[in-house]
Amino acid sequence: MIAHETQVRVRFAETDAMGVVYHANYLPWCESARIALIASIGLSYRKMSDSGYHLPVVEAHLNYKHPAKFDDLVTVRAAIKTKPSLKVKVEYEISADGKLLATGYTVHVFVNRDGMPIRPPKEVLNALLEAFDKGAPQ
Amino acid sequence: MIAHETQVRVRFAETDAMGVVYHANYLPWCESARIALIASIGLSYRKMSDSGYHLPVVEAHLNYKHPAKFDDLVTVRAAIKTKPSLKVKVEYEISADGKLLATGYTVHVFVNRDGMPIRPPKEVLNALLEAFDKGAPQ
Amino acid sequence: MIAHETQVRVRFAETDAMGVVYHANYLPWCESARIALIASIGLSYRKMSDSGYHLPVVEAHLNYKHPAKFDDLVTVRAAIKTKPSLKVKVEYEISADGKLLATGYTVHVFVNRDGMPIRPPKEVLNALLEAFDKGAPQ
Amino acid sequence: MIAHETQVRVRFAETDAMGVVYHANYLPWCESARIALIASIGLSYRKMSDSGYHLPVVEAHLNYKHPAKFDDLVTVRAAIKTKPSLKVKVEYEISADGKLLATGYTVHVFVNRDGMPIRPPKEVLNALLEAFDKGAPQ
Repeated sequence: MIAHETQVRVRFAETDAMGVVYHANYLPWCESARIALIASIGLSYRKMSDSGYHLPVVEAHLNYKHPAKFDDLVTVRAAIKTKPSLKVKVEYEISADGKLLATGYTVHVFVNRDGMPIRPPKEVLNALLEAFDKGAPQ
Repeated sequence: MIAHETQVRVRFAETDAMGVVYHANYLPWCESARIALIASIGLSYRKMSDSGYHLPVVEAHLNYKHPAKFDDLVTVRAAIKTKPSLKVKVEYEISADGKLLATGYTVHVFVNRDGMPIRPPKEVLNALLEAFDKGAPQ
Repeated sequence: MIAHETQVRVRFAETDAMGVVYHANYLPWCESARIALIASIGLSYRKMSDSGYHLPVVEAHLNYKHPAKFDDLVTVRAAIKTKPSLKVKVEYEISADGKLLATGYTVHVFVNRDGMPIRPPKEVLNALLEAFDKGAPQ
Repeated sequence: MIAHETQVRVRFAETDAMGVVYHANYLPWCESARIALIASIGLSYRKMSDSGYHLPVVEAHLNYKHPAKFDDLVTVRAAIKTKPSLKVKVEYEISADGKLLATGYTVHVFVNRDGMPIRPPKEVLNALLEAFDKGAPQ
């Protein structure tokens, strides 16, 4: 288990005419939390993509419970609860003011510059597995 | 069963540094297809929201199979395959050049201007149910 | 002078909590109109970018007069009124229901795959100049 | 003169297929910097909009000098250099790693809930003018 919390301030740009955050705009927050989670175990997604491989989203799921509003300080808790292998699953809890706004997950595979699936680069998988084994289950 | 197809031309704005469409940007395409599906049975989402109720997304799911690219002419087939009730589920098949790019669904409930869940307005539910019963199963 | 009109249906995703379209979201409409303008004179921006050069925006300007709303059918008239050279300037008139919503322009230069400015590719500049000379001034 | 600096971490969502940040995506950064500028003088844009008035953008301008990239830590310096009156002009300098990426400005007017222009609310204009007069010219 690896977990990390990230905070995001809601932009007016992210709201819609219902007066709340448009549902698609939670996904970039999950991305920010995922990048920070990866950084928290010593990996750099920037270096990974500069080296020519990516971890695109192959599956995304969100459950919306309460709307986020402009200027809310949103906390996104990202966690890897399933042992990473060819696929990496990241789970999210999105909250503000102690209230759970949404939960969800994304599933990722490693691809090369041309978008072809590849085996996870050894140093990345090792870092993920080491951190996963060290982390206490929750 | 109610189904409708909508076409979307991929904008450069919707791509990311992997050279393909960013995963969150499929959701506004689903929205366009959903609005067109609703229009195809004589309902207007604009009128609904002007009357003070909305159909926000309470659950969203996407499976990504092949990336969409800039300038692709994308077809989004939206379908209601489950009898609408308090919840309305819309399923999507997103394709380009005859190739399936992604599948997914969104689940919706009716809310009032303040975001509180309400029973579906009678005329809307009736229109949905009538169209649903008329549509041949697929 | 080269001019072309494109239509865009306003997405709910493009609105904000003021109930109207967020100001940044007019720029992707201008992009769509620009790509269509280029296509109208026989050029393909997709082929251009596949060949390794781009026409990024180096300057953007917008004046907002009346807000666009969800579901509006917006017309974007893109026009090249200044003879294209190292720079290409595209001007926009954005309207709906015969009402002018916004005007603006973008300025572009040619760059290679690494983002370095290059001289305009001959066939592209020729096509632009030929169309520019043929077009009646307006 | 009122000035304030805000930092933004570039999201992958904000990049495009040129490998750099899409030009429209600088505007939400300007918004974040503007909201923070307003907060720095004791005003809350959230409270303002909850009270029923807004400061929409009536003019926007950006000059792009160097591209921002994924994961860059971008600094946006927002400044009010012109005495606020019916219109408020905010100027921006966007940089990363000490390199100037873009400059620009937005112009704003006050509107009510229905989008009609109104005179600036007294307490807001007073706070702006007081801070403006206190700030040393730069």
